[in-house]
Amino acid sequence: MNVRLIDQFWQPKVRRTVQETIPYQWKALNDEIEGAEPSHAVENFRISAGEQTGTFYGMVFQDSDVAKWVEAAAHSLRHDPNPRLEAVVDAVVDLMGRAQKPDGYLNTYYSVAAPDRRWKDFSFGHELYCAGHLIEAAVAYYESTGKRKFLDVMCRYADYIDRIMGPQSGQIQAYCGHEEIELALVKLHRATKEQRYLDLSRHFIEERGKQPSFLKEDAGFGGPSKDRWFDLDYHQAHAPVREQETAEGHSVRAMYLYAAMADLALAYADETLTEALRKLWDHVTTKRMYITGGIGSQGHAERFTVDYDLPNDTAYTETCASIGLVMWASRMLRLEQDGRYGDVMERVLYNGVLSGISLDGTRYFYVNPLEVHPAVAHYRYDMQHVKTERVPWFGCACCPPNIARLLTSLDTYFFTQNGTEIAMHLYASNESAFHVQGRELNLRTETRYPWNGEIRIRLRTADPIDCALSFRIPSWCRNPSMTVNGEALPLEAIVRNGYARISRKWSDGDDIKLDLPMVVERIESNPKVHENAGKIALQYGPLVYCLEEEDNGPELTDIRLPADSELSAAYREDVLGGIVVLSGEGLRSEPDWEGELYRPVMRKRTSVPISAVPYAYWGNRTPGEMAVWIREKE
Amino acid sequence: MNVRLIDQFWQPKVRRTVQETIPYQWKALNDEIEGAEPSHAVENFRISAGEQTGTFYGMVFQDSDVAKWVEAAAHSLRHDPNPRLEAVVDAVVDLMGRAQKPDGYLNTYYSVAAPDRRWKDFSFGHELYCAGHLIEAAVAYYESTGKRKFLDVMCRYADYIDRIMGPQSGQIQAYCGHEEIELALVKLHRATKEQRYLDLSRHFIEERGKQPSFLKEDAGFGGPSKDRWFDLDYHQAHAPVREQETAEGHSVRAMYLYAAMADLALAYADETLTEALRKLWDHVTTKRMYITGGIGSQGHAERFTVDYDLPNDTAYTETCASIGLVMWASRMLRLEQDGRYGDVMERVLYNGVLSGISLDGTRYFYVNPLEVHPAVAHYRYDMQHVKTERVPWFGCACCPPNIARLLTSLDTYFFTQNGTEIAMHLYASNESAFHVQGRELNLRTETRYPWNGEIRIRLRTADPIDCALSFRIPSWCRNPSMTVNGEALPLEAIVRNGYARISRKWSDGDDIKLDLPMVVERIESNPKVHENAGKIALQYGPLVYCLEEEDNGPELTDIRLPADSELSAAYREDVLGGIVVLSGEGLRSEPDWEGELYRPVMRKRTSVPISAVPYAYWGNRTPGEMAVWIREKE
Repeated sequence: MNVRLIDQFWQPKVRRTVQETIPYQWKALNDEIEGAEPSHAVENFRISAGEQTGTFYGMVFQDSDVAKWVEAAAHSLRHDPNPRLEAVVDAVVDLMGRAQKPDGYLNTYYSVAAPDRRWKDFSFGHELYCAGHLIEAAVAYYESTGKRKFLDVMCRYADYIDRIMGPQSGQIQAYCGHEEIELALVKLHRATKEQRYLDLSRHFIEERGKQPSFLKEDAGFGGPSKDRWFDLDYHQAHAPVREQETAEGHSVRAMYLYAAMADLALAYADETLTEALRKLWDHVTTKRMYITGGIGSQGHAERFTVDYDLPNDTAYTETCASIGLVMWASRMLRLEQDGRYGDVMERVLYNGVLSGISLDGTRYFYVNPLEVHPAVAHYRYDMQHVKTERVPWFGCACCPPNIARLLTSLDTYFFTQNGTEIAMHLYASNESAFHVQGRELNLRTETRYPWNGEIRIRLRTADPIDCALSFRIPSWCRNPSMTVNGEALPLEAIVRNGYARISRKWSDGDDIKLDLPMVVERIESNPKVHENAGKIALQYGPLVYCLEEEDNGPELTDIRLPADSELSAAYREDVLGGIVVLSGEGLRSEPDWEGELYRPVMRKRTSVPISAVPYAYWGNRTPGEMAVWIREKE
Repeated sequence: MNVRLIDQFWQPKVRRTVQETIPYQWKALNDEIEGAEPSHAVENFRISAGEQTGTFYGMVFQDSDVAKWVEAAAHSLRHDPNPRLEAVVDAVVDLMGRAQKPDGYLNTYYSVAAPDRRWKDFSFGHELYCAGHLIEAAVAYYESTGKRKFLDVMCRYADYIDRIMGPQSGQIQAYCGHEEIELALVKLHRATKEQRYLDLSRHFIEERGKQPSFLKEDAGFGGPSKDRWFDLDYHQAHAPVREQETAEGHSVRAMYLYAAMADLALAYADETLTEALRKLWDHVTTKRMYITGGIGSQGHAERFTVDYDLPNDTAYTETCASIGLVMWASRMLRLEQDGRYGDVMERVLYNGVLSGISLDGTRYFYVNPLEVHPAVAHYRYDMQHVKTERVPWFGCACCPPNIARLLTSLDTYFFTQNGTEIAMHLYASNESAFHVQGRELNLRTETRYPWNGEIRIRLRTADPIDCALSFRIPSWCRNPSMTVNGEALPLEAIVRNGYARISRKWSDGDDIKLDLPMVVERIESNPKVHENAGKIALQYGPLVYCLEEEDNGPELTDIRLPADSELSAAYREDVLGGIVVLSGEGLRSEPDWEGELYRPVMRKRTSVPISAVPYAYWGNRTPGEMAVWIREKE
């Protein structure tokens, strides 16, 4: 399968990532960005390789920043060959090789700063986590360039890990407090066909959550947690994975775990894992997910809290957690073609992920709140994690290279192919090629999605091909329709689990039209979400909208949208590089407050125009207030 | 002036304080309450006196818990003589005398646990703060019993402080990070007529906020603060007091400072202090006060944040801060008779103070939120300070004895007398006696306030007395009326600054009727208070109301009150010991959510009865949700 994005929405973002973000982040990793928080991540490898003097600087998982950057660059080389960039990657990969210890170990923090702590802190040490990101990078680089060097380095490391960890006596029986190695080993297995890597991944998953827990009891490998928010559930280690029915703890960790479980469910055809994942999916997406697809509402321990606790202004909703949800969703779609996975993947990609990066690709949000009052957020102790403007880099810089690797690999999320069934999950103009029963099938998709829901797909094939094409019918769409060669399809009859499946003999020139009419939708929230009571959110197609101070003035919470007011959608080339803007009339309090704080109700309102922009685009103009959930006057 | 409460609202609460709370707290201070957090406060004095072995336990200001308890007991002896209680107080006062050092110093923490740190930590050491509370207790005990022993102990301590601190060279030029000594020295001056005490109080106030600040710069006395929320403004030491135009920092500290400033403004007739206080009053009450009169919205550093930042569910609103606001308000009324002080004193007393103690007098809130969801509050890191039920005691136990001393001295807050003008600020049935130009004037007030606004005052006097009687006309009242001996008074003509002033020759048997009709008021909040947008609060007379889960079921945030719905008030003897309950019809979402988190608006509502109880009474039944601000359907 090969997919080339040619659309006006994602493709410029991918291009910007390649042209702006990747070079920018390389500078950041080398501390060449003025005013950005220091990284030192590349220098750590030089010191570890003995080519520089100095001390380690950064988080214990600083290596993973470089790994994710290499992975992002590697993906980009697949669709955008760039010899200069490839030379930079070659150099850093060579450096990593020189930093590798003779036994295969590769981690700059433990090699430079804490050699006696190697494999001593599985709770918070992040060694296997870093190894996982390096493996993902190595696999991506191998798949894009065919170069084996980095892959060989990481196979040596994986072999070493496989020697010292596992179920045999004399091996360390542990797993990493931060999941990541598990899904990376599956990728390494796919790239190398080495069964041991897959088995080691399964071993880590099966060990996880066994009680009594070494993470809590064994001072040699783990040790007691710092406070109750960092207890076993923080690591998804409170119960064996199949017995976990609710998503708990650190939200990024949870997503990486579930993604790996889905990989293993597929690899081993393990229905018990799939069943566990269905429950977890249901729990996350119907109890603990923001409308933007953001997850993990609490800053302290970056974690899930309790069902329906989704505060908007103190929301954590880390960009990495949104990315993790995309990763999990895409893997669930490989397990079973169900629109609930595709719908959420679209929701989080277009909203909670995309908000993490500025329009110019060089400014980032780690935390993605759904409501911001800058004066309050700048002051409040419980909002210290909230940034009211995207920033150039972070001391803990997991998110920027994570979004870069997602965007440069975005082409891999559009389709899945299962034998003679090809399913399209996301919509954007693209040219894609598939091999079906030895023949090549080409699809050319044209659309202005997400600004317009008309999608046209033309087939090219040398010979007619008997296969099924499935198209996700988004749950946000009330009146979808479809034609093949101008002939209407009875969608009620062919849509199953959110996908319209057309099984036929396809011929060259076949023409599919899928129309997903987009209208302004007002969305209400389950009444158990206290924070959203009395409020609605605006959606247009897959996009969640927000009000910004730039368009609506300050005190956004004062705006009320009458239930019967008209809202119109119009594409505006002049706004934020071209977006659909939603407009209507709202109500505000009359400015007749004379310094009082409280008074008997007067309910004096005045009509004001209001204007909403996609949540993903917020914070790209003058800094100010932002709000997704808008008070409604019923 | 002598006031005896005989009403059905306050008097039982005062009696309960005397009969239940004071004995209970004595047990708590002696660690005799099972399940309560340890105190050790009395034991610390025994250890300091050399009569017990052991080590100091508790906060550095643990002594002040005993001091406030003695003060509460002392006030109670004034109106409820009790030889057994007096004997207990005599014993603890004797113990304090034995714990006093030969130079006059008296502080168990520094004497027992940190003798070398005496007068070394003015920022957080609380030495002068503890001295202040001991002085207040000694004055109260002297005034109630005429016994000088404790007063003499504290004069020795004050004399010692006055010797070592002050403007002379060789003296320590410092002031306490936690204000309290300043207002205590004014009381000591009034009790002893010693001018030095008043001058020392003024010295502390004048030194405060001078820059450069010893609290920040001088490691010998102060030292740098821990974080930005504990910076100089935390101590109200960021500027000289007359230049402070906004209320900043720790809210209890701020209140105690402003109270002392008001005392000194009066004592020295210092209009510059009064002018500064007017600005601060305006700032606190129109920008940073909850509708309950609670202040200090942030738990971290127990402090004010920024204007209009008044979150309901994470509110700190410490009981002590509310008490401090009562203290400040009552002193402002001595400076100038203005209804804005009386109105706020009433608001905070009937709501934010009274919520701090249970109906039975033995359970306390330190933190007084305006909205509680137990499941969320029990989990969330940023709500750790919120207790969803009153508790028997606190490790930091400033609030329980503080509310006890307020309630046993409540009689002193009702009237002020300025020459031949007597002003009544609060309403409750009472018998009061005044000396006016050498004659005695007795007032007998009868009312069912706050359940009913009819107030009848009958005068007794041997001879006619020429004087002015002023009555506060609460700003919550829309249609006040008044008669003297059956003759209506033209209120528009005689009300000035919120007080109806009647100046005449009063005769025995004169009969004043003041009618303050109470109706259910819906109160709206300044639109700049984001948290209250779209919501109203219910008030009835001086009482702010709330919804409780007990009466309205869970998910209180789902309730909407139609703007045009009727609300009725009825006295219900069977509810919470007898209260006015507010009832009406509200709307709730229909329970047709099938596991979704978000959906296109359906706005399906169903009518439900709703019932509100006074905020001060919440949390006295089955634990559950509570909300003051209620969504309104306009």
